Amino acid sequence: MKKHIAILGSTGSIGKQSLEVISQHPEEFEVEVLTAQNNADLLIKQAVKFRPNAVVIGNDKFYDKVSKALFHKFGIKVYAGIDAISQIVEMDSIDKVLVAIVGFAGLRPVINAIKSGKQIALANKESLVVAGELITGLAREKGVNIYPIDSEHSAIFQCLSGESDNAVEKIYLTSSGGPFRGKTKEFLCKVKKEQALKHPNWNMGDKITIDSATMMNKGLEVIEAKWLFGLKHNQIDVVIHPQSVVHSIVQFHDGSMKAQMGLPDMRIPIQYALSYPKRLKSDYERFSFLDYPNLTFEMPDTKSFRNLALAFESLDKGGNMPCIMNAANEVVVDAFLKDKIGFLEMSDIIEKCMHIVSFIAKPTYNDYVLTDKETRKIAVSYIVND
Amino acid sequence: MKKHIAILGSTGSIGKQSLEVISQHPEEFEVEVLTAQNNADLLIKQAVKFRPNAVVIGNDKFYDKVSKALFHKFGIKVYAGIDAISQIVEMDSIDKVLVAIVGFAGLRPVINAIKSGKQIALANKESLVVAGELITGLAREKGVNIYPIDSEHSAIFQCLSGESDNAVEKIYLTSSGGPFRGKTKEFLCKVKKEQALKHPNWNMGDKITIDSATMMNKGLEVIEAKWLFGLKHNQIDVVIHPQSVVHSIVQFHDGSMKAQMGLPDMRIPIQYALSYPKRLKSDYERFSFLDYPNLTFEMPDTKSFRNLALAFESLDKGGNMPCIMNAANEVVVDAFLKDKIGFLEMSDIIEKCMHIVSFIAKPTYNDYVLTDKETRKIAVSYIVND
Repeated sequence: MKKHIAILGSTGSIGKQSLEVISQHPEEFEVEVLTAQNNADLLIKQAVKFRPNAVVIGNDKFYDKVSKALFHKFGIKVYAGIDAISQIVEMDSIDKVLVAIVGFAGLRPVINAIKSGKQIALANKESLVVAGELITGLAREKGVNIYPIDSEHSAIFQCLSGESDNAVEKIYLTSSGGPFRGKTKEFLCKVKKEQALKHPNWNMGDKITIDSATMMNKGLEVIEAKWLFGLKHNQIDVVIHPQSVVHSIVQFHDGSMKAQMGLPDMRIPIQYALSYPKRLKSDYERFSFLDYPNLTFEMPDTKSFRNLALAFESLDKGGNMPCIMNAANEVVVDAFLKDKIGFLEMSDIIEKCMHIVSFIAKPTYNDYVLTDKETRKIAVSYIVND
Repeated sequence: MKKHIAILGSTGSIGKQSLEVISQHPEEFEVEVLTAQNNADLLIKQAVKFRPNAVVIGNDKFYDKVSKALFHKFGIKVYAGIDAISQIVEMDSIDKVLVAIVGFAGLRPVINAIKSGKQIALANKESLVVAGELITGLAREKGVNIYPIDSEHSAIFQCLSGESDNAVEKIYLTSSGGPFRGKTKEFLCKVKKEQALKHPNWNMGDKITIDSATMMNKGLEVIEAKWLFGLKHNQIDVVIHPQSVVHSIVQFHDGSMKAQMGLPDMRIPIQYALSYPKRLKSDYERFSFLDYPNLTFEMPDTKSFRNLALAFESLDKGGNMPCIMNAANEVVVDAFLKDKIGFLEMSDIIEKCMHIVSFIAKPTYNDYVLTDKETRKIAVSYIVND
């Protein structure tokens, strides 16, 4: 029985690699749905190759173009608009929804997919950061499994295989430290986006690459890990590992630790999230100790990279605080990519938002939506005023 | 339900640590049998503390002493002699036999325990090296599981938890490299036993410590791994990792790798072999990345440490060749410990024995016994003649 997969965000970095994985295992997977926000050309190309049942283009203005290329010629159903992305996951024929949309925009589709009882392969960490309690509660209720795609969380997930009855004492999320590891604030305040976009090990989309440079990515991952694995704040440690070979580590209550390792290649965790519990044979390049004679580990510098401290703070505070932090971060990363603010200003604005936006201890879904909107408005105001 | 454990070789390094583990989990384990070869005093002390059903002292001349101390005062049954060690494992009340006897002497008790349907916690690697095919075949037939205690094999075993349906591509057995890592033959030919007995990371018995210094230990472990995990020669690699923190690594056919890690503390693998599939909470000191900022990996030097090459050779050849190698090794290690031969002579004599002793492609149990005896005679002759 083939698994029928919907890929939300198929034209982004994870989306493209997911299709690469699927194309190598045609006996295992069938592409059921593809969605993209703006990249109509690539969406059309992908759909012609994989012949999904339906596609969605988020930006309405490309509807005609996509429809002409796909429906008229191949009978592929075409829908448009943000709402359609959230609704398409309800399709009966879908087994698993791979969510590779970036940012808060992933939240609604994830919730809808879980409500429809679809298994989730999750690359969108922001949805869990914002509404982890809501999502994991819903998943439990619906008997839905969430398979992480983030390399760190996939590592933890892989290490927990066969250990469901054994207590986890602690996890270590590894971080490359990004392109500015070891740099001081004096250096960081002059950093340009071109430098920040050069990640030493991973080839990723723009938003996550900036998040890696500021360490916000690791902060988001800490919160994501809390919800995915049901951990307490003090059970999650971050360790800087510049080689990005050890993807993360679990320590059990007997003192034994398990790590998942390999070359930094997102196709491995993507494939595992799709094929679990099976591992599928791959011909991806293999890790060799000859190429990595030294694996190094150091503590993160949360003085220069304040985002990580802010993330732990928001995790402690709970409620809508991670949502506030995430919304502010999405705004400042966008502003930094448009050269509107400097590198260190990103943390400053996030922190201001965390102090100003109204705190809600037990938010509903609507509270998250309003918090996100409100925070973005406030964050933007700091940028315009600068 | 408590597990009833027989510990063969309770006064050695692994035996003592096993009792330490058991004493920390009285709700889980009951000591049913203890055996020792010569250390009657410690055996008595252990028996008084753990109150087993029976003990065996291998060396007959201590029978009276042990019997007086244990049977007369506490009603603990006392037996003596090598044969009794092999027979005692058949006792109905035993659930699991922990074999911590060193060398070829472990073979018969292991076979008897499997024949009696007892689960095995195996620290005696020599039995699998000598007769891996026979032992694993018998274990399959009897539905007996063999839980490895060697830290490397425990690491692989832990990494394979939950992965029974997934193909292993390769395993990496890590080795500290021993006290003479990086040394040349010129240095090694002058080495004294006092230097060889100083292992940088592990506190172990004399025989295995010398085996670690010569790399024979890793060679034996390669053969042990082949049988425990059903691997081919080319699926087993050795990598030198001086910190002894990563205990071994599995690479699956999707390219993902799992490693088991932790401080070098034999109590963790002993405990896991006893408690599997459960992990029991321990208060052993925890690993910290602060203490291990650099984990290094290098290829083994099989020119200076020829034993590792000899082990791969014997694995290739199969039949009774690993038995020949093992018997010769036991003789030369003993001779080295008695200052009768030099460090490098050990490999020389082993190699000579491998060339001279009659090769048997499909040996029976008796062939192994005869091969062992014959090889020892020949190996001793090289030492006497020197």
